[in-house]
Amino acid sequence: MPQIVECVPNISEGRRPEVVEAVIDEIRQVEGVSLLDYSSDADHNRTVITFVGEMEPVKEAAFRLTKKAVELIDMEKHTGEHPRIGAVDVIPFIPIQGVEMEECIAAAKEVAKRIADELNVPTYLYGEAAQRPERRNLANIRKGQYEALKEEIGKEERRPDFGPAKTHPTAGATVVGARMPLVAFNVNLDTDQKWIADKIARAVRESSGGFKNVKAMGVMLEDRNQVQVSMNLENYVKTPIYRVFETIKREAARYGVNVVGSEIIGLVPQQALIDVAEWYLQVEEFNSDQVLENRLK
Amino acid sequence: MPQIVECVPNISEGRRPEVVEAVIDEIRQVEGVSLLDYSSDADHNRTVITFVGEMEPVKEAAFRLTKKAVELIDMEKHTGEHPRIGAVDVIPFIPIQGVEMEECIAAAKEVAKRIADELNVPTYLYGEAAQRPERRNLANIRKGQYEALKEEIGKEERRPDFGPAKTHPTAGATVVGARMPLVAFNVNLDTDQKWIADKIARAVRESSGGFKNVKAMGVMLEDRNQVQVSMNLENYVKTPIYRVFETIKREAARYGVNVVGSEIIGLVPQQALIDVAEWYLQVEEFNSDQVLENRLK
Repeated sequence: MPQIVECVPNISEGRRPEVVEAVIDEIRQVEGVSLLDYSSDADHNRTVITFVGEMEPVKEAAFRLTKKAVELIDMEKHTGEHPRIGAVDVIPFIPIQGVEMEECIAAAKEVAKRIADELNVPTYLYGEAAQRPERRNLANIRKGQYEALKEEIGKEERRPDFGPAKTHPTAGATVVGARMPLVAFNVNLDTDQKWIADKIARAVRESSGGFKNVKAMGVMLEDRNQVQVSMNLENYVKTPIYRVFETIKREAARYGVNVVGSEIIGLVPQQALIDVAEWYLQVEEFNSDQVLENRLK
Repeated sequence: MPQIVECVPNISEGRRPEVVEAVIDEIRQVEGVSLLDYSSDADHNRTVITFVGEMEPVKEAAFRLTKKAVELIDMEKHTGEHPRIGAVDVIPFIPIQGVEMEECIAAAKEVAKRIADELNVPTYLYGEAAQRPERRNLANIRKGQYEALKEEIGKEERRPDFGPAKTHPTAGATVVGARMPLVAFNVNLDTDQKWIADKIARAVRESSGGFKNVKAMGVMLEDRNQVQVSMNLENYVKTPIYRVFETIKREAARYGVNVVGSEIIGLVPQQALIDVAEWYLQVEEFNSDQVLENRLK
């Protein structure tokens, strides 16, 4: 199986297509990297980019796009609804296939150091790559955004992991890290009582005592007259889809409510679904090399 | 997604490695084809070869290996336990990804015609490519094997679909066709009563009134002191794994018996497992393009 690392940089530009294209072109020019998706949001003034490949080209592409974004984006002129601290706001490395989290953490450190050394942009490590516990959570690093960080970066608690304790005059600072892929998974219930979806969301999510790595909220689907438990599963290995799904079914049953369907939004790693099949079929031993497509080089 | 066609030719040579290698080398020389596996059985005097690729190179490789096998294998001298009618006994084309059964049927016809025209070996079409209903079943074409076919090929009911109504003097005849991939799936029960596995096998298999496309039998697992329902699922799209599995669980429950586990033997198409995950999670809409790995070129 080929090694697959995913990288999902967020840049602080969602209004000037020529700038976005110039940054994206840097990725396109790295051999061995596939650009899967990018989408700009004008209100957020932000673009989310997704590309994949083996580790070396992915690291190179992450650096090159940062260099271009640092040249073209001026945080002094940036406005937008989404919290941000720099021209390249955040760069997560994500293990998909044939690569360990440890390798993604090492990649994050290497790229963060290179950005600081060569571009003079201070960098922070977050997620699994965090060097301080409070920096596992991106929101803590972004507190007060670019404008506050510019003033506070000299303080001990805001000191960057690499580079000067001074924001770049136009590019601010950048957060680099490693995390598991997200699975966006929603479960629909045969009731119009939103409080039931809220109750179930509280039962399954980490913040209120449920499963680790799960974010959840109740949503009313007006057009269907049904409610939904809308979730992000942030680690499908440690907290698998089937376990959360079965818990939702059981909690719903307590109110006499049934699950009518579910949705997987966007991309999902193959292994997350194979894990579901294995669990329900009670497969005793299975190796992902048995998946025919995985035999192809 | 790249197009993937699987081809699993069976050649009538399992004792002389130099002959097997010479035939396999023909496949290796076709660009765009991946050799996944080959295994020889000396008792059967037969080798089963598995390779995959896009349609054009797969067809080319199928023809070239046949040409080489026709040169090197003499059916007049062949002995072995497995039924066979020719040097290349059977060549199935199997749709795996991004390819329709209709295209595999067309490929089977084209390759069967080319073998007849260029190698003067009579060919039969079987499985989904069959031109006569009784030829869907390979066993009907192979009745009496090479030795009987040599005498009977002139009869109307044994007339080949392509080529002369006369077996090749050394290579006999070849069967070419199209079929779905097999899934070898076994379900283990928490009982040592083999009759229960036999009963359940009869309940789920086509031949005794169960599901179409299912072959099943009861097996005693001596070392575990448990019994097994051992199956071939011959069309995972029309007769999916989860439906057969759920039926086995229900039938076992009628005897107070539980399913303790299952096994998937050998290769399985990714889609067969994704279908399982979708069904159990009650996913409302899912496109296999959402599987991250399928986005890679």
